[in-house]
Amino acid sequence: MKNYIHSHEAVIEEVSPGIRRQILGYDTNLMLVRVQFAADAVSAAHSHPHQQVTYVEKGVFEVTIGDEKQLLRRGDCFILPSGIQHGARCLEEGVLIDTFSPAREDFLK
Amino acid sequence: MKNYIHSHEAVIEEVSPGIRRQILGYDTNLMLVRVQFAADAVSAAHSHPHQQVTYVEKGVFEVTIGDEKQLLRRGDCFILPSGIQHGARCLEEGVLIDTFSPAREDFLK
Repeated sequence: MKNYIHSHEAVIEEVSPGIRRQILGYDTNLMLVRVQFAADAVSAAHSHPHQQVTYVEKGVFEVTIGDEKQLLRRGDCFILPSGIQHGARCLEEGVLIDTFSPAREDFLK
Repeated sequence: MKNYIHSHEAVIEEVSPGIRRQILGYDTNLMLVRVQFAADAVSAAHSHPHQQVTYVEKGVFEVTIGDEKQLLRRGDCFILPSGIQHGARCLEEGVLIDTFSPAREDFLK
């Protein structure tokens, strides 16, 4: 396993309109993914068994978790227990750092 | 458990000279911590059983993992398997996003 990942070495993949994903680092129980959003891009409501913690590196996002919506900005964070429904709308172009436990093996296929 | 953490709500703690830690979000198996480094600040070599993935949000760091040293900059990442010795020196003022699995219960005391 590599211990160092330089940004230019990691593939950037467009996963839906205006959303580009870069898997940066992972181990069995942990994965860190950088996700760039264009303004107005939407990550539709979904859920997964993995725990998730996401950090807002840049931009403004309206984040829906269960029945609640909040605006998050640079330096803010959200926490998703296993299985909770969630989605995000980008209000100002930005970047989310998504982290998962265990690693999202579905992202590696 | 709170799902949303706004940056201004999370305590910032000076953990060693020039290093300030802000625990942003955690669940049982996952923790995300923002660490601000002044130039020349050093995180001394240490190890822990937790898996760790760290993202460089800002700045330049010389990161030592086992016997190897590399320079990492904004957008780069490093991956630490359980138990590996590691340390970092900040060359230009910056921020690391440290993520751990499981959560660092020692940080919560």
